[in-house]
Amino acid sequence: MAVELKDLTKVEDNYSKWYNELVVKAGLAENSAVRGCMVIKPYGYAIWEKMQRALDDMFKATGHENAYFPLFIPKSFFSREASHVEGFAKECAVVTHYRLMNSSQGEGVVVDPSAKLEEELIVRPTSETIIWNTYKNWITSYRDLPILCNQWANVVRWEMRTRLFLRTAEFLWQEGHTAHATSEEAQEEAMRMIRVYQDFAENWMGVPVVVGHKSPNERFAGAEDTLTIEALMQDGKALQSGTSHFLGQNFAKAFDVTYTTKEGKQEYVWATSWGVSTRLMGALIMAHSDNNGLVLPPKLAPIQVAMVPIYKGEEQLKVMTEKMEAIAAELRKRGISVKVDARDNVRSGFKFAEYELKGVPVRLALGPRDLENGTIELARRDTLSKEVVPQEGLVDRIVALMDEIQTNIYQKALDFRNSMITKADTWEEFIDILDNKGGFVSAHWDGTPETEQAIKDATKATIRCIPIDLVDEEEGKCIFSGKPSHRRVLFARSY
Amino acid sequence: MAVELKDLTKVEDNYSKWYNELVVKAGLAENSAVRGCMVIKPYGYAIWEKMQRALDDMFKATGHENAYFPLFIPKSFFSREASHVEGFAKECAVVTHYRLMNSSQGEGVVVDPSAKLEEELIVRPTSETIIWNTYKNWITSYRDLPILCNQWANVVRWEMRTRLFLRTAEFLWQEGHTAHATSEEAQEEAMRMIRVYQDFAENWMGVPVVVGHKSPNERFAGAEDTLTIEALMQDGKALQSGTSHFLGQNFAKAFDVTYTTKEGKQEYVWATSWGVSTRLMGALIMAHSDNNGLVLPPKLAPIQVAMVPIYKGEEQLKVMTEKMEAIAAELRKRGISVKVDARDNVRSGFKFAEYELKGVPVRLALGPRDLENGTIELARRDTLSKEVVPQEGLVDRIVALMDEIQTNIYQKALDFRNSMITKADTWEEFIDILDNKGGFVSAHWDGTPETEQAIKDATKATIRCIPIDLVDEEEGKCIFSGKPSHRRVLFARSY
Repeated sequence: MAVELKDLTKVEDNYSKWYNELVVKAGLAENSAVRGCMVIKPYGYAIWEKMQRALDDMFKATGHENAYFPLFIPKSFFSREASHVEGFAKECAVVTHYRLMNSSQGEGVVVDPSAKLEEELIVRPTSETIIWNTYKNWITSYRDLPILCNQWANVVRWEMRTRLFLRTAEFLWQEGHTAHATSEEAQEEAMRMIRVYQDFAENWMGVPVVVGHKSPNERFAGAEDTLTIEALMQDGKALQSGTSHFLGQNFAKAFDVTYTTKEGKQEYVWATSWGVSTRLMGALIMAHSDNNGLVLPPKLAPIQVAMVPIYKGEEQLKVMTEKMEAIAAELRKRGISVKVDARDNVRSGFKFAEYELKGVPVRLALGPRDLENGTIELARRDTLSKEVVPQEGLVDRIVALMDEIQTNIYQKALDFRNSMITKADTWEEFIDILDNKGGFVSAHWDGTPETEQAIKDATKATIRCIPIDLVDEEEGKCIFSGKPSHRRVLFARSY
Repeated sequence: MAVELKDLTKVEDNYSKWYNELVVKAGLAENSAVRGCMVIKPYGYAIWEKMQRALDDMFKATGHENAYFPLFIPKSFFSREASHVEGFAKECAVVTHYRLMNSSQGEGVVVDPSAKLEEELIVRPTSETIIWNTYKNWITSYRDLPILCNQWANVVRWEMRTRLFLRTAEFLWQEGHTAHATSEEAQEEAMRMIRVYQDFAENWMGVPVVVGHKSPNERFAGAEDTLTIEALMQDGKALQSGTSHFLGQNFAKAFDVTYTTKEGKQEYVWATSWGVSTRLMGALIMAHSDNNGLVLPPKLAPIQVAMVPIYKGEEQLKVMTEKMEAIAAELRKRGISVKVDARDNVRSGFKFAEYELKGVPVRLALGPRDLENGTIELARRDTLSKEVVPQEGLVDRIVALMDEIQTNIYQKALDFRNSMITKADTWEEFIDILDNKGGFVSAHWDGTPETEQAIKDATKATIRCIPIDLVDEEEGKCIFSGKPSHRRVLFARSY
């Protein structure tokens, strides 16, 4: 598959087009024959697997176990929790039949009308209902609590406008579902998990995030409180990257899940749920990449070091490749993933462009002069800098460089993000920032859903979150209504 | 959740009931609110995760990459490959609508008739069609081959009679789909992967398998050749545990996937597919377990060593627990997973029964006398033997014991399986073995589908495989028709 880097749209020309092209050209994903459903290609899936492994380790380190619940949910389950049905049961894939038959008119296969389900099944858009229906049988006494389960699964939401990774009809995710004896414990769990997401986003993806509460308008359907991590993309738009919900007793009440306390009383169980999805792939791509392609943080890069021989003729290729394989073996011993690219049907310049496009953090090139001098050319993807370095000490240098690149990518994103949180104290400022600068606007809000909706209608900006760490309490006046406000919140246009 | 071991049906009384109860009581899986769909509980899922990790490492070691393809397949795709549609498109979940709406009669939510899909979508029962439709765009020249992809996914087949793990409407599996330039290369791949499955079954699960070809009747719908691993359960019934298919050019032709050879000619691409599923959980349970519960091979046991304190009073509990935690720390350093069970609300006898039920390979119990004498009680799950051993050298002993138990479990199953392959040379012998001994019957067959079907109708036994390793060529007469035959094949009743 040829890499057609020259055709990649420039970031500054059309960010949205650049993103769409990059996802495909870098071999991450592509659209499928099924509307809104993507194919995640091997290179993209390798990144997702690294994300999964890191997150799964973090979930287990915080006491969670994995389990698996059914893909299908009986339609009636959605009606049990009033606000949940409004949020989820509408745009979904509905299974109505369980058999096909040969068409009597010779039109291939058709749905067998006699195989109609008594109750339709919904392909899960999220699993609170089926899981709480299951937990009912798992929970009797306080000794059965807490239940700390996570599920890695596919889910389907029938989105009308889809974009690879950012919004697809089917996507992959994990959904944690926990059950607790007290409200406090459940709220602590919801906070613990949003902090796990923050840790992952910042220290693995190199993407700084703002942690905060969602406003009631933006809460998960069925939650009492939704915590979010909000990332900022290079075009100044926010991307909700993970959420953690305190569900109160809503699902316990809907599915009649009670437990006997130490004192022998019957109480409803308290719940949380939390999830991140393949949308994180979109965040990773949009936060760091450039006109040359992807920029991957070393911790999530399927290939951390690409090695390219510079040679003339078969004999030189053999010599270079052998030397590179020896270096690669040393690097692999230190846990670095290396690809030695000895292809003889493409030029080295093509290979350079390909590894840049694919975001490989470090590229090493070895030519005849290097062999003489005991040197090697080292190129960093994040800074696009090149230098000729001694082969001696190379392995230690590269091990250290992995950390350096990881930190640099994060710091660059953090500096950008921090430069894009702007205070607005008047409506004019607010509009001006949104239209001309972008990013997060820190502004006062009167706390009402009506005002939030009016601001959204006027500007397409929403409250991304009420930040926990960033903003101290402060008296002020709502940017829109002028009514009194006790703290600033973060607005932005978003994906 | 109380362990009600005393209620477990005995293997010898009702094998089928014993299995169903064991799966639930050991906390592996349970039925869900959706007919035929199971909930895989944390303990069961932990075993599945270990299976996945081992298999995934083996796939990668043989050059495969993971990818992800859509859950849904357009109905028309199934009509493209004639025999595939007969095998798969019939009993399946059909998505016909993409929206629900509030009922005007106040009956909760109902299907929105205006949101009918133009073409129905099938929830994948297997993914050859959608994948080959995708490969069409990935393959142009011989340089794009081979493609060696695997997918971990859920699939749905609308089975009428379901049993936990063995046959469920939704199940989890992996499906490898590879594309090759030549028939030979594809056939080698199909063989390589069935040998990977054999390696996994025997060396990880401790389950000996017979490797062989399926007869044409039992082939995968759309395959030119199906290789299988066939395991034997303790009730003498066979269980097909994994298959690897040489698909010829059938899917390449159905989806028009061609490549340009080195010589510049256009050729159709050659294919394989291969899969194992959560059915392996059923094989694992039925191959080794007994009246006390599961028997897990150490390599797949989520808990390898359970430690139980024997104590009177809180002070003793504290002392025993501290000592056990110290031993556990040493074991964990050697990669052994250990659970120290310091619960004070259940008796040690209850804990013993629980770890037996859950198949934990080794149980250690430490009491006051042991503390005085520097000893500890060690119980093996596979042999149900107990001995008091010195604490000195315990860690080395347990590390070695893990291998010993793994080998012993396999050897026991192998001896049983070998004792259950019986030659039959007359129809009377054939019937007698099936009815009174069970297991595999090695017999001559005339090679026709008609005879195979007639034998199946008469006895419920099918040809499990035409073994590759076990049986040499030998002239004989078909057990049923008396016609000449050149080799024996293995018949059995099966799951």
